[in-house]
Amino acid sequence: MFTRIDHVGIAVRDLEQSAQFYESTFGLTVVSRETNEAQGVREAMLVVADGPNGGSYVQLLAPLAEDTPVGKFLARNGEGVHHIGYGVDDVAAALADLSGKGVRLVDERPRHGSMGASIAFLHPKSVGGVLTELVQAAGR
Amino acid sequence: MFTRIDHVGIAVRDLEQSAQFYESTFGLTVVSRETNEAQGVREAMLVVADGPNGGSYVQLLAPLAEDTPVGKFLARNGEGVHHIGYGVDDVAAALADLSGKGVRLVDERPRHGSMGASIAFLHPKSVGGVLTELVQAAGR
Repeated sequence: MFTRIDHVGIAVRDLEQSAQFYESTFGLTVVSRETNEAQGVREAMLVVADGPNGGSYVQLLAPLAEDTPVGKFLARNGEGVHHIGYGVDDVAAALADLSGKGVRLVDERPRHGSMGASIAFLHPKSVGGVLTELVQAAGR
Repeated sequence: MFTRIDHVGIAVRDLEQSAQFYESTFGLTVVSRETNEAQGVREAMLVVADGPNGGSYVQLLAPLAEDTPVGKFLARNGEGVHHIGYGVDDVAAALADLSGKGVRLVDERPRHGSMGASIAFLHPKSVGGVLTELVQAAGR
């Protein structure tokens, strides 16, 4: 089902400071900045590698307000890994398959993710404490 | 510096139960099982994708005892993402570069990791709360 590790989603307090850190320390490059009002985040995507099935990224996430999922995560845990995104060829088909296997879904239907992707989250209680995202990259 | 997301390291209580979950739910395959006495863990590597610079894996980690790093992590946080491993071409050169940039290292010198890799950890306090591992795959 998974075609790649699409991204590591990391909760940060200061998006520009963290992006600058990843660029200057590890030599990564920000390839996209977006604000996702529905999710209450501002984000930066830094490319780690390209692959035959799509790229792999570090996704830095800063909350738009304290009362957002990432804002609450930061208050509870501080900065750190927030979720893992795996590439899939067909997010709707993957959701149907996983739902049939009894996996608890956060998103019953795909929604819009970073860089035009179709995405959906699985509930961490169903995946050993890991908030898990399925990512069907744009144009695939 | 980074050539790929090498793996996501996930702390679990029951290695075989978690490996079975990732295999049956997401269709991943365990390609290696190892016990690392020095790190106090038993681990399973499940391949997500192969790439030109090496594979990407889910690494499941179960503690050999409560008084180990992963045992303490589980007591404090429960199951979930423990660290992120990034591929590098030369882990010793990467350590020298990062140390020169003021990044705090857990390992001053490379040590043995999964599947014959040379690895080193960076301190999460220096990397925005993310325990970060450098991985030079075997034979590279």
